Amino acid sequence: MSDAAAVETGEKPMLGTLLHNGVYRIVMQRPERMNALSREMMSALSAELTKAGNDPAIRVVLLGAEGKVFCAGHDLKELTAARGEADGGRATYEAIMRQCSDLMQQIVRLPKPVIAVVTGVATAAGCQLVASCDLAMAVDTATFCTPGVNIGLFCSTPMVALTRNASPKQAMEMLLTGESIDASTAKDFGLINRIVPRDYLDQVVQKYAEVIASKSAHTVKIGKEAFYRQLEMPLSEAYDFAAQTMVDNMMARDAEEGINAFLQKRKPEWTDS
Amino acid sequence: MSDAAAVETGEKPMLGTLLHNGVYRIVMQRPERMNALSREMMSALSAELTKAGNDPAIRVVLLGAEGKVFCAGHDLKELTAARGEADGGRATYEAIMRQCSDLMQQIVRLPKPVIAVVTGVATAAGCQLVASCDLAMAVDTATFCTPGVNIGLFCSTPMVALTRNASPKQAMEMLLTGESIDASTAKDFGLINRIVPRDYLDQVVQKYAEVIASKSAHTVKIGKEAFYRQLEMPLSEAYDFAAQTMVDNMMARDAEEGINAFLQKRKPEWTDS
Amino acid sequence: MSDAAAVETGEKPMLGTLLHNGVYRIVMQRPERMNALSREMMSALSAELTKAGNDPAIRVVLLGAEGKVFCAGHDLKELTAARGEADGGRATYEAIMRQCSDLMQQIVRLPKPVIAVVTGVATAAGCQLVASCDLAMAVDTATFCTPGVNIGLFCSTPMVALTRNASPKQAMEMLLTGESIDASTAKDFGLINRIVPRDYLDQVVQKYAEVIASKSAHTVKIGKEAFYRQLEMPLSEAYDFAAQTMVDNMMARDAEEGINAFLQKRKPEWTDS
Repeated sequence: MSDAAAVETGEKPMLGTLLHNGVYRIVMQRPERMNALSREMMSALSAELTKAGNDPAIRVVLLGAEGKVFCAGHDLKELTAARGEADGGRATYEAIMRQCSDLMQQIVRLPKPVIAVVTGVATAAGCQLVASCDLAMAVDTATFCTPGVNIGLFCSTPMVALTRNASPKQAMEMLLTGESIDASTAKDFGLINRIVPRDYLDQVVQKYAEVIASKSAHTVKIGKEAFYRQLEMPLSEAYDFAAQTMVDNMMARDAEEGINAFLQKRKPEWTDS
Repeated sequence: MSDAAAVETGEKPMLGTLLHNGVYRIVMQRPERMNALSREMMSALSAELTKAGNDPAIRVVLLGAEGKVFCAGHDLKELTAARGEADGGRATYEAIMRQCSDLMQQIVRLPKPVIAVVTGVATAAGCQLVASCDLAMAVDTATFCTPGVNIGLFCSTPMVALTRNASPKQAMEMLLTGESIDASTAKDFGLINRIVPRDYLDQVVQKYAEVIASKSAHTVKIGKEAFYRQLEMPLSEAYDFAAQTMVDNMMARDAEEGINAFLQKRKPEWTDS
Repeated sequence: MSDAAAVETGEKPMLGTLLHNGVYRIVMQRPERMNALSREMMSALSAELTKAGNDPAIRVVLLGAEGKVFCAGHDLKELTAARGEADGGRATYEAIMRQCSDLMQQIVRLPKPVIAVVTGVATAAGCQLVASCDLAMAVDTATFCTPGVNIGLFCSTPMVALTRNASPKQAMEMLLTGESIDASTAKDFGLINRIVPRDYLDQVVQKYAEVIASKSAHTVKIGKEAFYRQLEMPLSEAYDFAAQTMVDNMMARDAEEGINAFLQKRKPEWTDS
């Protein structure tokens, strides 16, 4: 497992940093724009995710943000600017919504776990980002909302991710009222996994991520991919698929090593294959 | 937004009242029959819902009941009376179950939010009514159960709505034991959104409903319809659908007004289009 | 309803005992092997379930285990032994995974409710067993985990059952970290229904099972089968199916008896038909 010292890529509006033990931290750093998902921001985030997916030194991805707002969703000024176009903006909106949906699904399809680290307000597509991550940690003062309904633009794409985390009535309340929920409610809803005090956040998140980073990257990749695929299948089909996944997994080097190590009461040495 | 004074339609077994600010309250008022869903009661409720769907002055629907029982489910005397028919009642049961399933889906398909206001016992198809509403509030003494199994008639249609709110083991326990759960458990299960003390109920429900009534009716209609449609799609299909919904929503008058108002820090003026 | 005295079948590695009032208790009794799901153990469990399904004296099945480990999942020594086969074990792994998936689905398809009674650690396919049961009770010291990722073998088949109980982020955390959750968290996740102190367990479980055993076996069979079928259908299809199920149920002897008994305020006498 890589233990490279932190290297900052330093590119705006996103900062990618390789922390210890294969944990890669992506930080949205446009706090003055409330880290809105402008086309530029979405491209930068997508590029970071692609990089994280390809770099074997990266085993787990953290997705955080600078400032009081984790992410405020779409860039309303950018959306409004397109109204002057010949088609009233339709083609631009189609491109933006496509880009945003692709970005969210890129997280789901990434062969490495992505953990949202929410230190502020997560709104609309920002809330969708959290919902789209495999796991999520938040500070106790974080809040979450899908307030599109307040501005006449229902949070329809955020709702896709939200309703795959929270139960229908919980999601519907957020979507129809546009009101915020606190971190504790978000945990009850299944939108986040853990609440951590701000002072201990970096330390707790790093330790949590390292637990996952210490596993075989090959095993994690197999598991994450299978997770989302079987979720959409009827039970018997899901079992046929998952049983085959287990068999293939058994034939992989790291399963042999892992099981042997377990039976011999020693630490496994992964080759990530 | 309409601010019409309360007008009582006064028709039995259902009372429809337009409260302030577009909030329409439907009250089942056959407490002596435990508000059972007789064919007459279902027809009356369906008619009220149709009216609520068509009347532009109505923006949000409350569904409540008079008496200690919110709704006791099917009318067992009506069911039993049909046993004397030539086919042993089969055709009548088919008609009743069809009517009931249509009624539940009418709530789901109504272009306006429906909020259950549960002040008593919600049993069998009465529990299904609560589960079928978009949102639900209950007093702390409300209880919920699906006790069909106690009388040899499993709550199979209530289970459709219940399992789309609660998790499988939670729903299975209610269905197999036939035992009641209290309001707090119902909230944990995702069957209701909020618990309110009886003394403050009218006030809290009205305020809650007005929050939703204050949004663009066009936006709410788009959102509610998309909510239930995308819920049944695989992830990528749901995103394709929701992204297109967002684009269409962006082209609507109220999204333009809402976003402009937000950027100009003023209140939006909806045209509900 | 049968009130036979307890009869022990006494066959290893599984002990089936008919308790009072139609409650049948299956106990895995290979504590020295941590009740691992070896092929022998799976066959024995499957045989017990088949017997329970066929015997009209059996109305509800309890699934428990002797020792501190409820069930540790697959037998790793058995898996490892197959590596020496000509195909590296692939055919054996396919057979084992098929057998395991069939066993889990046998629980789901059994026409009688199966209640897991968890008195220890439920790991990997052992956790899947709990998730696959219709209901689950656990002592407060029980723990649950899907630690396959620790040995390079992702818990892909356990995840099928787990994700049909817990929400995605909750399940993903268990699967990616491999860490244990306690009984209270398992209840929050929807993996178990109730937590019972060890000293009162037998008594509470028996009483709980008898509540279900006291219902019409025909009604329970109709309901359990419909439960899992409708769960995989879109809403309108689920209603068509469930409405037809209700009609058929109404025509059954026990529904007529049950409704009559209810209207006449007497106890029903089931014929389980």
